[in-house]
Amino acid sequence: MRILGIDPGSLRTGFGVVEHGADGRLRHVAHGCLHVEGQPFVERIGAIYRELRAVIGEHAPATAAIEQVFMARNADSALKLGQARGAALVALIEAGLPVHEYSALQIKQAVVGSGRAQKDQVQQMVQWLLQLPDKPQADAADALACAICHAHHASTRRHWQELAIR
Amino acid sequence: MRILGIDPGSLRTGFGVVEHGADGRLRHVAHGCLHVEGQPFVERIGAIYRELRAVIGEHAPATAAIEQVFMARNADSALKLGQARGAALVALIEAGLPVHEYSALQIKQAVVGSGRAQKDQVQQMVQWLLQLPDKPQADAADALACAICHAHHASTRRHWQELAIR
Repeated sequence: MRILGIDPGSLRTGFGVVEHGADGRLRHVAHGCLHVEGQPFVERIGAIYRELRAVIGEHAPATAAIEQVFMARNADSALKLGQARGAALVALIEAGLPVHEYSALQIKQAVVGSGRAQKDQVQQMVQWLLQLPDKPQADAADALACAICHAHHASTRRHWQELAIR
Repeated sequence: MRILGIDPGSLRTGFGVVEHGADGRLRHVAHGCLHVEGQPFVERIGAIYRELRAVIGEHAPATAAIEQVFMARNADSALKLGQARGAALVALIEAGLPVHEYSALQIKQAVVGSGRAQKDQVQQMVQWLLQLPDKPQADAADALACAICHAHHASTRRHWQELAIR
C-alpha cells in the first residue's frame, strides 16, 4: 500500500510517499517540500491545494497520513497553519484518499522510539529507515515520518486482527 | 456584478450572494449557512469545500469577499477556524473567483457605519439594506455584510477612477 504523508505549513508543506509492502517492508517512493513563500497569502493556500493534487496525481497513493496539530505558538500562527492544513485536507479528500491523523508524539515514537525526539533525530531515523543517500529536508522528513507512522499502525492493526481470527 | 460573501467557521460557515447593479443598487440573491456540526472534523473540512462549490455553481458569482481573520479566542479555536477558512479559500480559488479580504472593522463600518457594531445591529442593517422579510441568521448576515462591504469598496474605487479620468 502506498502512503502519502503530509506535514502542512503556511510557508513550507512537506510531503513524503512510501510503499508499505505486504511483507511489512518500507520502500521510499518520493519526498519533497512545496515552497509557497513570496506569494500573497490567499495564493499560497491555492498553491498548496494545487501542488498537492499534482503530487497525488504523480504518485497515486492509496491512503494519506497527516499530523494532528493541537498547539501553535500563538493564535496568529495557528490561523495561518490552520488554513494551510485545511487546503491540504481538501486536496486529500477531493482525491478520494482516506485521511489518518497522528499526533506529533505518535509520529516521533513510531520513528525514533521516543516522543521527545528532536527534529534532527527524526531526519536521521527517516534517512536510515528508508535508506536514503542524504538526510531529507526537515519538513519532508516529518512528512515521511508521518507516512512511516501510519505504516506501523496499519501493521499493528493487521497483526491484532490476525490474532483475533485464529 | 454578483458578489459572494463568506463568513467561515468550523461549525457554521455563512454565505451570502448579492447583485451589485451598474446603478450602484444592491439586490439580494441568496444567503444561507452550511451546517457541518456532528461530523468528524476532517469530513467537516471536506463538506465546507464541497457545499461552497455547490453554492458557487448554483449562483455563479463573479467575485468573492471573505472576512480577514486576525484574532481568535485561543490557538485551538484559531487552528479550527483556520482549517475551515482554508477549505473555503480553496473553493473560491478553484472556482476561479478573485478573492477580496476585508477586516471585521471594515465590514461593520460599511454596513452599520461603526466598527463597534454588535452582531444584532449587523443583522438588522443587512435586513434593511437588502429589504429582506426576516432578520437573516447571524453567520449568513455576516457573509451578506462582507459582500455589501465589497460592493461599497468597488463603488468607491470606480468613483475615484472616474474622477481621475476626467
